[in-house]
Order: sequence, then C-alpha cells, then structure tokens
Amino acid sequence: MALEGRDLVSIFDLSDREIEAIFDLADEMDEHKDVGLKIADGSILCTLFYEPSTRTRLSFEAAMERLGGGVISVADASSTSVAKGETIADTVRIIESYADIIVIRHPLEGSARVAADYASVPVINAGDGAHEHPTQTLLDLYTIWREKGKFRDLSVALVGDLRYGRTVHSLAFGLARFGANVTLVSPLGLEMPAPLVERLRKEFGCTPTQCHSLADVVTDPKSLKRRKGRQKALATELLATFDAVYVTRVQKERFESDEAYQTAKQGYAITQEVLSRAQADALVMHPLPRVDELAYELDRDPRAVYFRQAAFGLPVRMALLAALLGKRPAKVKRARKGDYRPEPRREVDFRKMAQLKCPNPRCVTNHESYLRPQFTFVKHAADTVACAYCEHEVRSPLGSDERR
Amino acid sequence: MALEGRDLVSIFDLSDREIEAIFDLADEMDEHKDVGLKIADGSILCTLFYEPSTRTRLSFEAAMERLGGGVISVADASSTSVAKGETIADTVRIIESYADIIVIRHPLEGSARVAADYASVPVINAGDGAHEHPTQTLLDLYTIWREKGKFRDLSVALVGDLRYGRTVHSLAFGLARFGANVTLVSPLGLEMPAPLVERLRKEFGCTPTQCHSLADVVTDPKSLKRRKGRQKALATELLATFDAVYVTRVQKERFESDEAYQTAKQGYAITQEVLSRAQADALVMHPLPRVDELAYELDRDPRAVYFRQAAFGLPVRMALLAALLGKRPAKVKRARKGDYRPEPRREVDFRKMAQLKCPNPRCVTNHESYLRPQFTFVKHAADTVACAYCEHEVRSPLGSDERR
Amino acid sequence: MALEGRDLVSIFDLSDREIEAIFDLADEMDEHKDVGLKIADGSILCTLFYEPSTRTRLSFEAAMERLGGGVISVADASSTSVAKGETIADTVRIIESYADIIVIRHPLEGSARVAADYASVPVINAGDGAHEHPTQTLLDLYTIWREKGKFRDLSVALVGDLRYGRTVHSLAFGLARFGANVTLVSPLGLEMPAPLVERLRKEFGCTPTQCHSLADVVTDPKSLKRRKGRQKALATELLATFDAVYVTRVQKERFESDEAYQTAKQGYAITQEVLSRAQADALVMHPLPRVDELAYELDRDPRAVYFRQAAFGLPVRMALLAALLGKRPAKVKRARKGDYRPEPRREVDFRKMAQLKCPNPRCVTNHESYLRPQFTFVKHAADTVACAYCEHEVRSPLGSDERR
Repeated sequence: MALEGRDLVSIFDLSDREIEAIFDLADEMDEHKDVGLKIADGSILCTLFYEPSTRTRLSFEAAMERLGGGVISVADASSTSVAKGETIADTVRIIESYADIIVIRHPLEGSARVAADYASVPVINAGDGAHEHPTQTLLDLYTIWREKGKFRDLSVALVGDLRYGRTVHSLAFGLARFGANVTLVSPLGLEMPAPLVERLRKEFGCTPTQCHSLADVVTDPKSLKRRKGRQKALATELLATFDAVYVTRVQKERFESDEAYQTAKQGYAITQEVLSRAQADALVMHPLPRVDELAYELDRDPRAVYFRQAAFGLPVRMALLAALLGKRPAKVKRARKGDYRPEPRREVDFRKMAQLKCPNPRCVTNHESYLRPQFTFVKHAADTVACAYCEHEVRSPLGSDERR
Repeated sequence: MALEGRDLVSIFDLSDREIEAIFDLADEMDEHKDVGLKIADGSILCTLFYEPSTRTRLSFEAAMERLGGGVISVADASSTSVAKGETIADTVRIIESYADIIVIRHPLEGSARVAADYASVPVINAGDGAHEHPTQTLLDLYTIWREKGKFRDLSVALVGDLRYGRTVHSLAFGLARFGANVTLVSPLGLEMPAPLVERLRKEFGCTPTQCHSLADVVTDPKSLKRRKGRQKALATELLATFDAVYVTRVQKERFESDEAYQTAKQGYAITQEVLSRAQADALVMHPLPRVDELAYELDRDPRAVYFRQAAFGLPVRMALLAALLGKRPAKVKRARKGDYRPEPRREVDFRKMAQLKCPNPRCVTNHESYLRPQFTFVKHAADTVACAYCEHEVRSPLGSDERR
Repeated sequence: MALEGRDLVSIFDLSDREIEAIFDLADEMDEHKDVGLKIADGSILCTLFYEPSTRTRLSFEAAMERLGGGVISVADASSTSVAKGETIADTVRIIESYADIIVIRHPLEGSARVAADYASVPVINAGDGAHEHPTQTLLDLYTIWREKGKFRDLSVALVGDLRYGRTVHSLAFGLARFGANVTLVSPLGLEMPAPLVERLRKEFGCTPTQCHSLADVVTDPKSLKRRKGRQKALATELLATFDAVYVTRVQKERFESDEAYQTAKQGYAITQEVLSRAQADALVMHPLPRVDELAYELDRDPRAVYFRQAAFGLPVRMALLAALLGKRPAKVKRARKGDYRPEPRREVDFRKMAQLKCPNPRCVTNHESYLRPQFTFVKHAADTVACAYCEHEVRSPLGSDERR
C-alpha cells in the first residue's frame, strides 16, 4: 500500500516495511537538508496546535520549508477562535481547503483520529493527549537505526516514568516489532502498565526484563554462552549490558511526597559517573526537554546522542511529509513473515455496544457531541474491546465467546 | 478604475463590475489552487490581527502562499507590543515598509479605514468590529455565483440574527445590488435594523419580505404569475420558495432569558427534516462556525454548501490579493446603467461639524486621539450624516436644507 | 575576518569597517527590497522571541522572505513549552538543527551571549533585556549614514531618558566610534550613567556635552571659528546646532511623582513649534513606538525621518542575514588607524573569581544554573571587571595591580 494520501495517527498505522521505507527516505532527506529540496513547491502544510509544543511545531514547519513548501500555522488554538465552540470535525473540513496536509496536536485522546476521519487531506498526529505521538517514535527508532544500523538483538533500556510516558510506550512496541530486547527500569509505582507488557509479549513476542535500578547486578547472558561454569566472574552491572539507554523525565506530580520524588529522581539521573559504567558505544537518548535526569556534563560525551536525536526529527518529518504528499514515493519492501502490518479495524457491532460510553474522561468522544462511541476488537485479549478513538480498553460487554 | 493599489475596507468600495471581475479571476485561481501560482513571487503579505480570527487569517495566508508570495503575521496583536500605546496609524506606517499588502482585523469600527488612509500599500479589511468584513461578503456572493451562475431573480433567505450580524448586512446589500430577491427571517427583536431596510429599498430598489418563521405559508409569486386564479392551491411553505438559505448564528447574549434563547434557537435550526421541505437544488449557506443552528446530519446533503463556501474563500482571496498587488489585472467590464459604483465621499464642512464627536463608543475616532471626527453625506437620507470611519449615522446638525 | 558564520550579540562584536561593509550591502539590498532577491533560497531563519516584539520580529522575517529564505517563528515563547523548564542552551541546540540562523529576544541580560555560545549556527541578538539590541543601533546609524552621507563632525543630540535607554547607550558608542559629536539632553535624574560617559571619553575620545534642555543658549563653536570676536551675536539656541536629534521615550515609571513626569515629558516633547527652531536639514529620529514625545503634526515635515528610519531596518537586516549566512560576502575594507576592532576577551582567572556571582539580578547567569559566572577585564577602568554575559561591571577582587 502506497503511503501517499495516508494519515499517521498511531505508529500502528505503519507496517514494519513502511517504517523502513520512511527511514530510507529520511537518509536521502538528511543529505539534502541544508540546501533544501524543491519537491513540495506549491504545497501547503497547516500546523494546527490546540496546545503549544514549540519544538514539534518548528520541526514540522522547518521540514516543510526544506521541501520547498509553504506553511500556515496555528501555534496555540486554545486561546483563539478555532477553539471557541467549533468542533474538530468542522475545523479540519475548513482547513483542508487551505492546506494539502494537516499536522494536529490536541490535548484530547483520540482527537487526531477524528481529524483524520473528517479531513480529506492527510493528517499527522503530533500528540493527542496521553495517547500517541508517532513521529516522536519514528525519530527515536531512526536514531537507533542510524547509530547502530539495526534493531535485532540490541539491548535497549527504557528508564524513568514508564507508567504515564506516552513516548516510551510507543517506543517499546516499535523496538519489539523490530526484534530488540527491551529492559524496563522505573521507580516503584511508575512501572509500565501490565496490559502493555502483556501485549508486548503476546503480540510481538517480546518479554521485557523489569527492574528498579540500573545498578542491579546481573549475569550477562552473552558471556554465559561463551564461558560456561565461570558464572560468578561474569556477573556485571545491568547498565553495562545496554546498547542504548532511553531516559524519560520523572515528574514531581507523579509522587505522593517530595521525598519520594527526590529519591526517585536521584536514582534515575544519568551523570558522567553513571555513564562511565556503560558500554563504550552505548547511546544515551532522551525525548527532551530534560530537567535533572541528564547532567549537563554528559553533553560532550559522544554517547550522548539526545541532541542528534532531536535533529533527526527533521529528516524523518521531511520524509514523512514527502511520502504522504506523494512528492517522493517511499519504496516499501515486500512484507516478511512475522512482520507487523496494520489490519482493518474490526468494529464491535454497534447495536450491542451503543449504550457503552468510553470510560476515559479525556477521550474525544466525551467532548465532541457529534461522535458516537465506537469500539473495536483487540488482538491481545479476547474479553476486551478498545475505544476506536483513544484505544482505552474496556471489558467486552459481549463476553469473549462472541468474538469472531 | 484599475484595482491595483486599491484598498478594500467596505464592500461598497467595489463597483458591481469590479466584483464580477474578481469573480472571474477567482474562477481562474480555483483551477490553479492546488499546484499554486508563482505570480506573487517576492511579494509579502502582512496579516495584522488585533484579535484572533484563525480561519480568516489562515485563508489569507494560504492564498498568498498559493500565489507564491511570502507572509509575515501578527496572529493576536492585542497581547503584544503592537497594541501597547502604538496607534494604528504608526503601526501601519512601519509595516508598509516590510510588506506589500496588509490584511487587518481590529475590534474597533472604522479602524480599517484608518489603516487604509495611513498606509501607502493596499489594505484589506478582515473585520473591523461590527462594521464590515468585505471578503466574507465576496466569498458569500461568489458561492451563489458559482453554484447558481447568476444572482438576478434568485430568492435568498437570510435567517437568524439579522440585527447584529455584520456579515448578513453586507450580504443583503450585495444581493440587492445584483438583483436578487431577499427575504429576512429572524426572531422577534433580532430583525434587520429599519434604516438598513430603508437603504436597501431606496438605494438599491430591493424591498425584502420580512417574517419570523421559515414555516410561514405563503403564496408563491412565480406560481401566481403562471396560473392566475388558482391561488389557494399554490400556497406553499415559505421555505420551499428559496434558491438559497443563508443561516447565521443566534447568540445567547442577545436574549433576555435563556428560555427566549432556546425558543429562538430551535425555531431557526435547520435539520434534515426541515431541509426535506426545501427545493431540491436550494443552497444552505453559513459563515461558520456553527453551533446548533445546522445539524451535523445535513453535512452529507448536497445542498449543504457551507464547507464549499468556506473553501471558496481561498480562490476569492487569491484573486483579490493578485488584483490589488497588480500581479493579475482584473478585467473590469464597462459599467451598465443602474450599476453601483463607489463615488467620492462628500465630506461635511469641517467648520460646521467640528464640535460633533461620533456617538458610537466603538468607533475608532473615540480611541485614537490623532484622528479628527469626520462626517459624510449619505444618499439615502437627507437629514442624516455618517461618520466617515465607522459609518454610524447621526442626525445632521446642518439641517437637510443645507445639503448641496 | 569574514562575517559569514559570526554572531551579533553586541554592537562591539563588529569593527568599524565591518559596520560600513554592512551598510554598503544594505544599500544594495535597498535597491532590491521590493522585488526580493533569491540569494537565501532554501535557508531558514528561526525567530525565537521569549517576549513579544512585533516590529523587530516582522522586520527580520520580512528581511528573510525578501532574501528568498524561509522562516519558522516563536512569537512569544514565554507562554509556551519552550519556556517550561528548558534552558536557553538546550533550546538553541535543538533549533540549530532546524534553522540556519537564529534571531533571539529574551528578557534576561546576557541571554543572547549564551545562545551564541551554544548554537552552532549564527545568532543575532534582537534585544536581551536592558543589555543590547545591536540591529537597532545599526539601523539608527545607517539612517544617519544614508541621510547625511557621513558621521564625522556631525552634531547629534540624544534626548530623553538616557539613563535606562539601551538603544541610546549603544548609539552613543556607535556615533563616538565614527567621530560624531554627541550632546546628551535629559531630565534631571535620567542622565546617562557616569561610567558610560567616562568610557565614551577614554575609549573613543568623545566628550559629550551634557545639559537638561534643548532650549539652552549656547555659543555655536563653528561660528566662533569663523568670526572671532563676535561671540555674543552668535549665541544660539542649542537646538539649532544639531544635524540630528534622536528622541527617546520618557517613561512614567521612572519618576517619583506624576507631576515630575508631566514636567519632564513636556520639556522634551518635539512639536512643530520646537522644530521650527532647528536646522532646515536636521534629522528628527526616534526608535518608535512614540507616545507624546513626538507630535503627530511633525509627520509631514521632511526632517521627521523616524518612519524612514524604521523602514531602513529592512535593508540593514537583509544585509546582516545575507552576510552572516554567507550568501553575500560583505566587503570589509582594511582597518584604519584608530578604528575600533573587537578584541579577544581577556577572561579573569577562574580560580580567583569563582566565588563571585554577577550582582545583576537580571543577568542570565543568575537564572540558568548550568552557567558558571565569568568575568573579563575592561579597557576603560583598571580596577573593574565586567560580567562576561551581561557586561555588568563590578569592582575587581584582584585589585588593579594584578591586571596584566
């Protein structure tokens, strides 16, 4: 399936081979990013941001400018008339007549799906509440791809708040899809939610190691293979086993006391001293902005790739815009066995579900009255259905036996 | 008179043939709007918005981008330094050195006229309080022109708040100028002001029917002509007589009680059921955003043209920018007898009027101290003069006999 | 030294010949400013404004558009995520991957130096609190250069608040460097700070006349030369001796009582009556916006060049962007004897200064924790060192004898 004209609401909208095709295109864009390309000359991007996110907005706008296209922008719709009483559906149906592609950011979960459903031009989700931010995931994956040349059998640690971190959930699935080993390191109470871990395992065959400290001592499985019987000598600090460490912010408001916050923060901060115990070619990544979890002294360490990671947002977004606009066809390779490919959503029978509202108060269906609740079957649990917009999971009112 | 270098503050700044010339140009622009044109390459538009109006701003900016020009933008000057103590006259005299054309939106009535007076580059009014918003009127008229191919003898209903609606006042005059029949349908207390109705009649020979319900039963005048004597059988619901129904928002703050508001709102809402009684090729128009006055179920009805109407804003604004910038000369046909043409304003003698302030508290002359009040004679009433900025009418202190 | 790739944080970053080279380039740009140039095609400017300054921002953006480049913009970062917990150093290291040049405005003094230090692309200071705004100084100087063709031996009055006015301090040094005579006219209590006057004298050989009224009667030194002995007859009003009068705003909050403010304001306002006593070819300049210090009646006087002055911001900024981007090499003439040229900063020994914080509460070093205080020697006072960021001067803890 060609990428032209498609939407990107979730990282699950792209197959593994489509993601790789975007990366190939990003490689090409990266070579031309300084001089610019003229392939989108005459096209217009609208950045429609219902809450400010300067970095993401600038990155998309710069990408479009580098492609030679034009930009119209709503930097913060929450304070403007767009927000006053006009629905997302109406707004995008007006903007589609001005622009060839829309990048939307909105605090409500599922809002980008609504925009994609109603707009006749491609819609890219630049963050819909706690739900998805797929271009962040793409640039995170692209960074590893560029720096390491592969995903398979890499050991990647996801560190910090793994409970609320949208970014890190999507990345975990992306890594699992491409065959990386994932270790989850988080403070007590901020572990990755169990249903997500379950889904990683069932759907993508990835069983992450879970722990609470990078300083845990482990037995390096690779070493064990080579030199059986000398197990004790090869015990090593967990930190030393990773090819990449992806750090996320631990936010104060997630903790009950300031003391608990301070303890967690210090335990997960990466300093030069901590990094000295990591592999010589490990990557230290971060979605930025950082607060205290990455010391400034790291910035000159060649393993600190977080600014390069942010910079990769430009070629990735150039590639994505070019592909969805049909200005540069992404060459998608034939799917291989075991590849993830998006499947048509199997919607739960409307008549049996009509009474059910999405229980997620931040779901767009609870804020835009013209939307009717919709639910789809999920692959990883027979007794569960998910909101078609925000993907919040609820116990199926049908019972698991009714599922086809 | 060529359009190059002209301002557009009021729909009355354009003759009937000039409006048609802009429509011809808009037809041409519409063909090229996806690929863009390069005719304004190197030119710069400044959108100077003292209050946010995202839709209008994006539409102008997209139009300029499609023409190949550049854009500089003040999305909400009220919160920035532009507003702090700097007059409109000073601001536009600075911006004219950066940009080739200025689009201004300002809450004060008459403000766009001040901008046009002081700026040496063309100024387009994108809304000056309750006064004028001429490009909205142009796109409203263009929609009918495109969908119906003509204005003469069309029956157009203007529905909703006709008292405070700036949009609908200008449209009524536009329709009258081109020979359409106008019906005014509004809640009690929100009728079109009598002086405007009077002016429609005296100046443009249009006597609108006025009523309070689309469900009124009337005798179809066309039928009467054809089949005289069978009057009773041909009585029909008013709604069924219209070629176009232009709906506007009824705002809560216009009513004394919530009850009165709810009654009015329901009485003027267009639902699929209501629309089923309209002509098969009637147009349902709306300046958007809508609230409850247009049901979402209408959106798929081919008669619901409001999104197409919004989309026509793009070619109309492209045409206007191209014409005023002199990048595409609008071909204005020779005036015909009875055409409306702007005439030089006949200013009331300064010495006799100097004491008189404009009584409109929202008039720009009461807020910008360097402006001296100015009044002009009006055509439709001998004993009345109008503020030269906001067009608020006042009893002439000269007496009607002194008028030349 | 070529200008390509350089930063412009302070007017002292440019040598006299470099300023002249920018003026030569500005002359060229001014000829092409209406049709635009395509020399920066494919390049991107980011305007990063932590506080709104619409005029400055639009001027830079228009300049980049006229050069054919693209613009990404943060109009008011204070209300967006850029400001939330992210340091200037981190922000510019992200933006440098999107844009080829950054224009920053920030309320903290020294902030632009931080941005320049961390960004790998050129950074232009568009105002860092009360510290510097070098492109304003460049356009002020360029205005005199264009209108008078020279600086040497011109008499320029700086009028108004000379104590807090950042603009007027930089201009005084610029004028001094190019050999103009400077007169300082200010209300009591708003005189130019003594250390600045001292520096003008010691470093640039300029001893400004200081007084409190434009109406002071003085003996014209030129006349004295020509007609010795007739001194009394040639006494003239100070106002009549100037080639240019640069007026700045006197702000209410600088005065203890409203009465003192009103007196000062009236004493320094330029009206047509005041101007009638000035030379026939004197220039009246102002950085704008004005409040009451320049009467509207002056606007038509050919000596009132303040709008032309604002307009010169465009070619000056076009020239600067083109030069720093390396798109149009500025031809810098060989330095002449006595020219000002920036010298490498001689930093005070870190070990001896480490305890010293910059005492300026608005200094960026007191707000961004990753910065260590740094001090440099100054030329004009042996017992003084200056903060390397905000240039606030402090008594040297080393004692003057330790200075090399």
